[in-house]
Amino acid sequence: MERNDGRKVDQLRKINFIKDFTKYAEGSVLIECGNTKVICNATVEEKVPPFKKESGEGWVTAEYSMLPRATATRNSRDINKLKQNQRSVEIQRLIGRALRAAVDFKKLGERTITIDCDVIQADGGTRTASITGGFAALGIACKKLVEAGLVEENPIKTTVSAISVGIVDGVPMLDLCYEEDSRADVDMNVIMTGEGNFVEVQGTGENGTFSMDELTKLIDLAKKGNEELKLKQLEVIG
Amino acid sequence: MERNDGRKVDQLRKINFIKDFTKYAEGSVLIECGNTKVICNATVEEKVPPFKKESGEGWVTAEYSMLPRATATRNSRDINKLKQNQRSVEIQRLIGRALRAAVDFKKLGERTITIDCDVIQADGGTRTASITGGFAALGIACKKLVEAGLVEENPIKTTVSAISVGIVDGVPMLDLCYEEDSRADVDMNVIMTGEGNFVEVQGTGENGTFSMDELTKLIDLAKKGNEELKLKQLEVIG
Amino acid sequence: MERNDGRKVDQLRKINFIKDFTKYAEGSVLIECGNTKVICNATVEEKVPPFKKESGEGWVTAEYSMLPRATATRNSRDINKLKQNQRSVEIQRLIGRALRAAVDFKKLGERTITIDCDVIQADGGTRTASITGGFAALGIACKKLVEAGLVEENPIKTTVSAISVGIVDGVPMLDLCYEEDSRADVDMNVIMTGEGNFVEVQGTGENGTFSMDELTKLIDLAKKGNEELKLKQLEVIG
Amino acid sequence: MERNDGRKVDQLRKINFIKDFTKYAEGSVLIECGNTKVICNATVEEKVPPFKKESGEGWVTAEYSMLPRATATRNSRDINKLKQNQRSVEIQRLIGRALRAAVDFKKLGERTITIDCDVIQADGGTRTASITGGFAALGIACKKLVEAGLVEENPIKTTVSAISVGIVDGVPMLDLCYEEDSRADVDMNVIMTGEGNFVEVQGTGENGTFSMDELTKLIDLAKKGNEELKLKQLEVIG
Amino acid sequence: MERNDGRKVDQLRKINFIKDFTKYAEGSVLIECGNTKVICNATVEEKVPPFKKESGEGWVTAEYSMLPRATATRNSRDINKLKQNQRSVEIQRLIGRALRAAVDFKKLGERTITIDCDVIQADGGTRTASITGGFAALGIACKKLVEAGLVEENPIKTTVSAISVGIVDGVPMLDLCYEEDSRADVDMNVIMTGEGNFVEVQGTGENGTFSMDELTKLIDLAKKGNEELKLKQLEVIG
Amino acid sequence: MERNDGRKVDQLRKINFIKDFTKYAEGSVLIECGNTKVICNATVEEKVPPFKKESGEGWVTAEYSMLPRATATRNSRDINKLKQNQRSVEIQRLIGRALRAAVDFKKLGERTITIDCDVIQADGGTRTASITGGFAALGIACKKLVEAGLVEENPIKTTVSAISVGIVDGVPMLDLCYEEDSRADVDMNVIMTGEGNFVEVQGTGENGTFSMDELTKLIDLAKKGNEELKLKQLEVIG
Repeated sequence: MERNDGRKVDQLRKINFIKDFTKYAEGSVLIECGNTKVICNATVEEKVPPFKKESGEGWVTAEYSMLPRATATRNSRDINKLKQNQRSVEIQRLIGRALRAAVDFKKLGERTITIDCDVIQADGGTRTASITGGFAALGIACKKLVEAGLVEENPIKTTVSAISVGIVDGVPMLDLCYEEDSRADVDMNVIMTGEGNFVEVQGTGENGTFSMDELTKLIDLAKKGNEELKLKQLEVIG
Repeated sequence: MERNDGRKVDQLRKINFIKDFTKYAEGSVLIECGNTKVICNATVEEKVPPFKKESGEGWVTAEYSMLPRATATRNSRDINKLKQNQRSVEIQRLIGRALRAAVDFKKLGERTITIDCDVIQADGGTRTASITGGFAALGIACKKLVEAGLVEENPIKTTVSAISVGIVDGVPMLDLCYEEDSRADVDMNVIMTGEGNFVEVQGTGENGTFSMDELTKLIDLAKKGNEELKLKQLEVIG
Repeated sequence: MERNDGRKVDQLRKINFIKDFTKYAEGSVLIECGNTKVICNATVEEKVPPFKKESGEGWVTAEYSMLPRATATRNSRDINKLKQNQRSVEIQRLIGRALRAAVDFKKLGERTITIDCDVIQADGGTRTASITGGFAALGIACKKLVEAGLVEENPIKTTVSAISVGIVDGVPMLDLCYEEDSRADVDMNVIMTGEGNFVEVQGTGENGTFSMDELTKLIDLAKKGNEELKLKQLEVIG
Repeated sequence: MERNDGRKVDQLRKINFIKDFTKYAEGSVLIECGNTKVICNATVEEKVPPFKKESGEGWVTAEYSMLPRATATRNSRDINKLKQNQRSVEIQRLIGRALRAAVDFKKLGERTITIDCDVIQADGGTRTASITGGFAALGIACKKLVEAGLVEENPIKTTVSAISVGIVDGVPMLDLCYEEDSRADVDMNVIMTGEGNFVEVQGTGENGTFSMDELTKLIDLAKKGNEELKLKQLEVIG
Repeated sequence: MERNDGRKVDQLRKINFIKDFTKYAEGSVLIECGNTKVICNATVEEKVPPFKKESGEGWVTAEYSMLPRATATRNSRDINKLKQNQRSVEIQRLIGRALRAAVDFKKLGERTITIDCDVIQADGGTRTASITGGFAALGIACKKLVEAGLVEENPIKTTVSAISVGIVDGVPMLDLCYEEDSRADVDMNVIMTGEGNFVEVQGTGENGTFSMDELTKLIDLAKKGNEELKLKQLEVIG
Repeated sequence: MERNDGRKVDQLRKINFIKDFTKYAEGSVLIECGNTKVICNATVEEKVPPFKKESGEGWVTAEYSMLPRATATRNSRDINKLKQNQRSVEIQRLIGRALRAAVDFKKLGERTITIDCDVIQADGGTRTASITGGFAALGIACKKLVEAGLVEENPIKTTVSAISVGIVDGVPMLDLCYEEDSRADVDMNVIMTGEGNFVEVQGTGENGTFSMDELTKLIDLAKKGNEELKLKQLEVIG
């Protein structure tokens, strides 16, 4: 069976990283997953949130937003409604949790790394692209901390990547584009470490429900995808 | 092995529903899961959001909030910060998705049912209690719609309940209280239909990561819990 | 003359306090005045607002809110409109002023007691129920401060209770329910100490105006009501 | 006994109205009560709020604000805090209720009169000055409606004025300035019609409580003050 | 050629300053430019914004707002929309920049002067009237600082005034009223020092574009106007 | 005299347009002016704001924002402060006015074109880059309207471009980068049509004031710059 864009069911879209996409951030990549494009910028600041003060430990947090015209129709900016989009809130919490799993806060020391994920073009999978690209930006920033002698050891303890899987027309598939995602009966985002363990698994029966068997099949596809993403991440971080 | 409160690892906390907890809502229950207590009120309104206008279909949505002193220390109200708590945003989106899986929108017709979940006491598992109690309120409201002749057939197509499971001190456990939840290495919320299918699965490695084997064990525990919850729900809806 | 619910014109609705309604607050009661039900939680915090810093004195403040479905039709949450309901603002300022009249701030020391009044069911008189129940929660919290040895003397210097009175169909009445309140020509809230002095008197000619003679009659009724409420309060505080 | 500014206890401050203080409003006065100065502008608009639509009746509402430097120290603007000052909310609700008591909504027809009360200098009694000045602006606007043939009969059914009274150093006094108000044990705002009936009475024991006897004395003082204010109002409206 | 109000093309409207318009501000004037009237209050506070902390230097900032009924139709207050009017934002930034050009921050020392410009009647040219009146209020406040011995030397280093010019019906004109402004093809605000140098020039082709020749003519008119305004300012400051 | 980056005083930075930078917008360019990079997306919508309803005319508006890490240090997002950055407000109003000067609203018909300018990297001149790039996006979108037969004639009536000029170390210069801008005594933004007329001129004496002679020199430099920008714009629009 072939998908609209000619991919096989277990095939990722073309993944591309542009390193140093912007010049000021401590870590910056543009991640392209097919037509989904996200600017991921990592900022290192010598301060921590109140609950980490005097703990000797650092913190990692993430923010997610879409440009108004990242999508087929224009969405008005959050600031014009004075409310952050609820989907964005959910996504940036997920990105933050995922990336914190990759970091040893003791080794990071009392500093905060903020990962800004700004979607400039959205064709499905923006949250998983943000995690995968966000990890690359985080990794680049941590490497610079080591090189600058600001930390003794690299605080990155494992890679973290994410991919979406889903069941479309009854068929389990890897890396759904928007058109597939909108038709999917089951949609799952699987965030994994480089060792193949789960950081987070979120499966939703968008138009129905799913069984343990389907869950297992989807997770197998996701493992394959995350394995490939890990290699790309290591390459861009260097 | 025995837990702090004497429960077995696969034992739910004492579940209690107080039906008609408030008098104006079309469906109202207080759900008590141990020390976690949530008022779940269902409101039926003869209107739908813009994207459902003239579709002949209805909608189900949920809102979640905690009283300032539902917890050991007082949290200031969202309105005083002019921002909805980000955790609440994430939770109410989850509750809404879960309850929509239970409803046939065609049978509901062009009306909206809003499920308000207001936590008056929080001891872990407030999001799953909100889904389980919210379904009961929804079920009561739908039954009244049938009795009032406003809908021809009951729009409820299946029961939906939710329970948390997690790995604490290396041991998979059912229905974590706050103290267990805060020590858990893995935390998972499993939302299921009465038929035992998944509506949503969200597993997070809070202090680490987890394997497929652990995932499977946790889901088995959740199945047992949800089966018991379903029976309680059917009893209260009547 | 008999009222809709069979009460005499100078008769209170059935008053009921459920002590320790929630478990974390330093003082917690559910007050039921007929069908009006308000959760009153007192929180003690070891801090004071800026204008009390280094004064050696404490502070008492109140917040008031209604659950969306406390009333016959659903009201949207303040946070969704990004504005606190103006009626709630007015009421919580009244509750705060009333309860501060009961407290010796020197004896309280530099700590703040916040009284959260959350209406779960509204059938008229929610602001007076909040004051009467709020005082009970405050009294319980202060008693605990004494028992814990945190204050030398109980900072409560008098009881404070409140009741509504009004003129309905030309007849002065005690403790209006919603239906009576909405028909009232004059509506008055009378807040008194246990000694029978006024803390605050607010009388409004909702559908007209009123005379000194009517004012006097209403205040007499309110005295009777507050005297009964005081006894209930003392009982629940213990 | 003489007061700081040489007034007798039952003497109003110098009252002055500047009619047509601004040129665009349908009714505009600057009211000066001693050093308290409030711009009161009445705007007539051919629309009503939703709850009055197709009722054949009009509406009257009020807004109250202070310039940042109306007081001895500067207060930041509400918009910079994104919250309306809670005291302003309480006051503008009071002004609105008071002025509505003066108007026959049927005669007004389906139009809204908004009274903007902007305090440019505050020396106590800004809420009562706003009501007294606001009524004058309202009266001027209603007179113009009659003159323009937009209403058949003048919708004003009675004058409404307001004055503060209080007990300072044990002495009941009329029309407190800021310095007196800040020392007062009891503070009362009395809003009356031209016929001497009460529209609203709000008495507060700021630093203590008060008795029926004190209440009666204060109200007598307020009657005297409001009688004088009524004459001034009639003069300015013409 | 004569204008609607009888003025010549290079003639200012009648300018009037009322000094000490309010009594609490360190500097206060009401500026009247024809029918445009703005209250300008200068507040001196012994604090500086974060970026000036421990610099030994002060700061000057401005806020601009219009009363709801300053104009022919009523505008709702910013706070009711939870957003500052965008035009007001632009104007208050301009006023702030203009007035900062007049002040030696070293001589001012670590204090902030805030200029509040509240338009009570608007007939064109409110931003230039705010700058011209705001400078007068600033000058009065600085003079008081000298007199009180709080600063050694007057921090005012030059006068700053502003006037609008424009091309209406092809004719360059000085000091446009609202009616002229709304018909203008080119509108320019010119802010100058007493020495005749530019502080800021903002020219806009409202209904078209303009040439260097037109720009030069407009600036000549503005010079004449600002020269006259300077004399008025010096007179009111004294 | 040579500048830090080797440019001559009348030399633009390297200008580059990437057409179709995003795929959904009706017009999309990335404009690069040296290290300043702005995504300019034009969205065409078949609706107009209220004041244009049933006028037969269209509207053009602009929004401006910077990514948090477009600059050397991270700025928090507007939505987290619930206030749009005041500088952004000022800039987006300028962009909107500038681009409206280019469009014949009658020819556009009742539709709105929104130009989103999102700065991904800021090195001075972001507002002029946004206007120059925004015009290109607008031009591309209008061309598509013609090609799609939605409008009869191209509503673009002239090109509009903008450039900054300033006096740095006493020397008038074209196209300031951030480092130059922060040292400039005078800073001017000049917006011109393709015919060499002014759309808007904004000159500010950032650290001082300026004379007519300086103004004239700066405008001459700006003319040269805008002439070059016009050619680039025509090339990218095609």
